[in-house]
Amino acid sequence: MTTSTHAPVDQSVFLRACRGEPVPHPPVWFMRQAGRSLPEYRKIRAGIPMLEACRRPDLVCEITLQPVRRLGVDAAIFFSDIVVPLAAVGVDLDIVPGTGPVVGQPVRSAADVDRLRPLTPADVEYVSEAVRLLVAELGGTPLIGFAGAPFTLASYLVEGGPSRTYARTKALMYGQPDVWHALCARLAQITREFLEVQIAAGASAVQLFDSWAGALSEADYRSYVLPHSAAVLAGLDRVPRIHFGVGTGHMLGAIAEAGADVVGVDWRTPLDVAAAQIGPGRAVQGNLDPTVLFAPWEFVEAQVRRVLAEGAAAAGHVFNLGHGVLPDTDPDILGRVVDLVHGGSRP
Amino acid sequence: MTTSTHAPVDQSVFLRACRGEPVPHPPVWFMRQAGRSLPEYRKIRAGIPMLEACRRPDLVCEITLQPVRRLGVDAAIFFSDIVVPLAAVGVDLDIVPGTGPVVGQPVRSAADVDRLRPLTPADVEYVSEAVRLLVAELGGTPLIGFAGAPFTLASYLVEGGPSRTYARTKALMYGQPDVWHALCARLAQITREFLEVQIAAGASAVQLFDSWAGALSEADYRSYVLPHSAAVLAGLDRVPRIHFGVGTGHMLGAIAEAGADVVGVDWRTPLDVAAAQIGPGRAVQGNLDPTVLFAPWEFVEAQVRRVLAEGAAAAGHVFNLGHGVLPDTDPDILGRVVDLVHGGSRP
Repeated sequence: MTTSTHAPVDQSVFLRACRGEPVPHPPVWFMRQAGRSLPEYRKIRAGIPMLEACRRPDLVCEITLQPVRRLGVDAAIFFSDIVVPLAAVGVDLDIVPGTGPVVGQPVRSAADVDRLRPLTPADVEYVSEAVRLLVAELGGTPLIGFAGAPFTLASYLVEGGPSRTYARTKALMYGQPDVWHALCARLAQITREFLEVQIAAGASAVQLFDSWAGALSEADYRSYVLPHSAAVLAGLDRVPRIHFGVGTGHMLGAIAEAGADVVGVDWRTPLDVAAAQIGPGRAVQGNLDPTVLFAPWEFVEAQVRRVLAEGAAAAGHVFNLGHGVLPDTDPDILGRVVDLVHGGSRP
Repeated sequence: MTTSTHAPVDQSVFLRACRGEPVPHPPVWFMRQAGRSLPEYRKIRAGIPMLEACRRPDLVCEITLQPVRRLGVDAAIFFSDIVVPLAAVGVDLDIVPGTGPVVGQPVRSAADVDRLRPLTPADVEYVSEAVRLLVAELGGTPLIGFAGAPFTLASYLVEGGPSRTYARTKALMYGQPDVWHALCARLAQITREFLEVQIAAGASAVQLFDSWAGALSEADYRSYVLPHSAAVLAGLDRVPRIHFGVGTGHMLGAIAEAGADVVGVDWRTPLDVAAAQIGPGRAVQGNLDPTVLFAPWEFVEAQVRRVLAEGAAAAGHVFNLGHGVLPDTDPDILGRVVDLVHGGSRP
């Protein structure tokens, strides 16, 4: 990668596809492309806890660049974790390897919510610095800003950690809606500021990860979640906004309405079906099943071609997986997928 | 409950609703109604491992009856576990509290599949005996037979335990389709025989639990799973067949086509939407979000009424939760839900 001669970022294939403009081929990047599937990532992270890694601009920059160098993807995604802004406002939490985020004192009352203070840019100066470093290094390759959405953040805060049922989260939502909305309003401020900081420092797009919103019915999503995600996305429209959750095929219209320019779709819903659900004027992102990458290449190739064909039905298509890269994935296969999407082939 | 004077089981509200016949009120039962939410269950299970409990007809009978006595539900569900028939054919597995089924030697090759022998009624004589005991005790209340479907069983066998991604399962499915289909064909025989045994001993209906099938796209479900679930259900049509998976809202038509008289629906898809997807001539079952039961009663009541109103759009409606009763659920709330569905009220 070079910073000397490159087309303006604004004219990159990725940003053009997000805006629904003609592109020579769909752009491609992978959720969790910077992560455990890359040996260079495992090496650089060795012995460094996740939250510490997220706070070191040099490391964030290097880790974010690794997949761009190795795979030739069309966009970088800012290396972080959805709980980074929560830790930045003083929430007692840790990211436990093999488990995920664990919160010391779960949030389950109005008093708990009151303790959650707003995020200011000064809280995440290391984020601004990392983004500035990255944008200088990336040249013509766009950087996507990264943040978790209010529902998904709330689920970790209320449950105290990962959950399969979201029982405590929903109990709070249904039983104490005032507390719930106050919590999500605070999380919306934190998330929005976290993304504003990244845009101000040079990110060209943002992706809002509402990873677990698919646990809700559309009616509940609209009542309890959509207004807060919309509050995050409303003021960020100077860059393309990607909005994604796993298992949201039953409510893609609502995910779009929250303020998405690009709707992320998991592998359960074909992209042409998704495009019809979200209506004209928005692009789609996705949606190869991450487990397909463990199959023989001929199978992978056929599935990539199917996704490309289905994606062509949308106003724009950003090729991606339907969820994050799984840790055991062979990076060489990721590289071959990039080349296939680009219309070439890797020997 | 008495066995002396009761209407014939065949004319029970539950079976009539399954057949789409007029009923005075929708029948109601709860997935996992016999389980950890009941103090009498926790007492009788104390110190007895799950698999052992499933093999003792006296215990199975008592545990299955507990919610019928306490809650007045319209059907009993045979107390078992989806891995019971696998253990019965000699698969080395255990049900680990807090984790779930753990398989000693995961199934990942043709040789592994070859070791999986067919189930015969003699392997599960304790099931026949428990069903006979139950049917005598239940009188006019129907007993629903219980089994896991091939995909969900395969996922435990291939992963070696519970999974969030089903990566190894799908890798086998995509990469070695012959091995996959051979595995599912054997599992279909085991599952079908397990349900045949229950019907032969007096079960009035069956529910096939394909709990994790929602992890698949509809195209993959149709290619890799539907034929095997259809093989299970095809020969069991002398009783109503309920077919259920969590998160299957994107493919309810396929779940129905596999051979369901009643399609189980989780809380993500409103029952009127589900009824339109599965077409005429089939009933629906569901679909109160199990977490709603942790909310104040006024909220629960409003949600039950909504589910009843939406269910009225279908050819028949069996009221249930959208997934199993969560362990911390207050059984008194379950009882109030039963009364509300029945049109009465509990003081």
